[in-house]
Amino acid sequence: MKRLNLLVGGPTDLWPESLSNGQVVGDFIGIDRGNLHLIKMGIDPVVAIGDFDSLAAEELQLVKEHVSDIRQSIPEKDDTDTQLGLKVAFDEYDADELVIYGATGGRIDHFLANLWMVLEPRFEKYAPRIKMIDQQNSISFFLPGKYTIDKEIDKKYLAFVCLTPMNSLSLYDEKYRLTDYHVKQPTSWASNEFVGPQASFEFDSGVMCVIQSADLN
Amino acid sequence: MKRLNLLVGGPTDLWPESLSNGQVVGDFIGIDRGNLHLIKMGIDPVVAIGDFDSLAAEELQLVKEHVSDIRQSIPEKDDTDTQLGLKVAFDEYDADELVIYGATGGRIDHFLANLWMVLEPRFEKYAPRIKMIDQQNSISFFLPGKYTIDKEIDKKYLAFVCLTPMNSLSLYDEKYRLTDYHVKQPTSWASNEFVGPQASFEFDSGVMCVIQSADLN
Repeated sequence: MKRLNLLVGGPTDLWPESLSNGQVVGDFIGIDRGNLHLIKMGIDPVVAIGDFDSLAAEELQLVKEHVSDIRQSIPEKDDTDTQLGLKVAFDEYDADELVIYGATGGRIDHFLANLWMVLEPRFEKYAPRIKMIDQQNSISFFLPGKYTIDKEIDKKYLAFVCLTPMNSLSLYDEKYRLTDYHVKQPTSWASNEFVGPQASFEFDSGVMCVIQSADLN
Repeated sequence: MKRLNLLVGGPTDLWPESLSNGQVVGDFIGIDRGNLHLIKMGIDPVVAIGDFDSLAAEELQLVKEHVSDIRQSIPEKDDTDTQLGLKVAFDEYDADELVIYGATGGRIDHFLANLWMVLEPRFEKYAPRIKMIDQQNSISFFLPGKYTIDKEIDKKYLAFVCLTPMNSLSLYDEKYRLTDYHVKQPTSWASNEFVGPQASFEFDSGVMCVIQSADLN
């Protein structure tokens, strides 16, 4: 079970505590300024990706001193740096799990681009291996099938976020249930909850995003 | 031209300055705790919607003293409070423009539920009248057609966020252009830019979300 992490450029104040405290398990791929954040935390990324346009000369120098594998991207490219990160993680590093940090908050066009990567045909098969984690949201992805998931102890809400239309969605044992429901357009069933320590659901087509979240004190 | 505003419960630190400074034009509909924020700013909402479960007794009393039209919702309902807000704004108040504040940040299931309201058949016709504004994002919605939009002076980036598959998308005069492009799945074309003070685009099907955004200093 090989876990990799990807740090992209979202607001650092939304990072989960585990990242701020440097307690995340596994190697990191850094995207652009994310590499600086990692190096300052004492973590040398295994790969640094970015155009690095926004970095000062001495910042770029620091990245070069700490990262042996630097992939300089060009801004007028087809792939975003985060898409390049996914390709490196899965095609080159065979990640079994890729946890993306810094994917939320700030610019919403960036967040939605991150969220919808799993809908691209080339990445869809990797969807079940991708997670996005911030301070109050834990996001995972599912392809058609039947699943039982575990409640995260620090989360209260359970959302079924249908990224696409979907056939035969059933929520079997949650606070609010559905049976063989046909989802006609992208829909976020927010604020559902676990009844016990686990929850089961099933669907026949489309891509499901499950978000466990908590209110912030 | 009747402008209404809706304040929902997202993080207050993401509010745009115009709201924090109390300079927003038009009446407000408050959702749940949003009503308290408004009253504390000296703004009495024309309608207050919510289950108000999370409000202390004296907070609810304050809302009752300041708002004559209170719609108490029940948590186990089909519509979210924000959906109820849309119905009130358009069906009862005939809003020509509805600006939603507090719709971003915090819990992502809430944000996506807010974003995707315009895809519901009952609300789709209102999409062109809805805006969502936060500190660094200005979000608007478009139904099939040809449009020319104005650059907001405090924004740098222009994103074409296809909420659905889409036929014949053309971006005519932006930094990155497209011609008759078939969008196969929800896609956020982030980080495009205006070349001049305006930008033109056209598409034949689906729902387009346009986001103007800025980096945060």
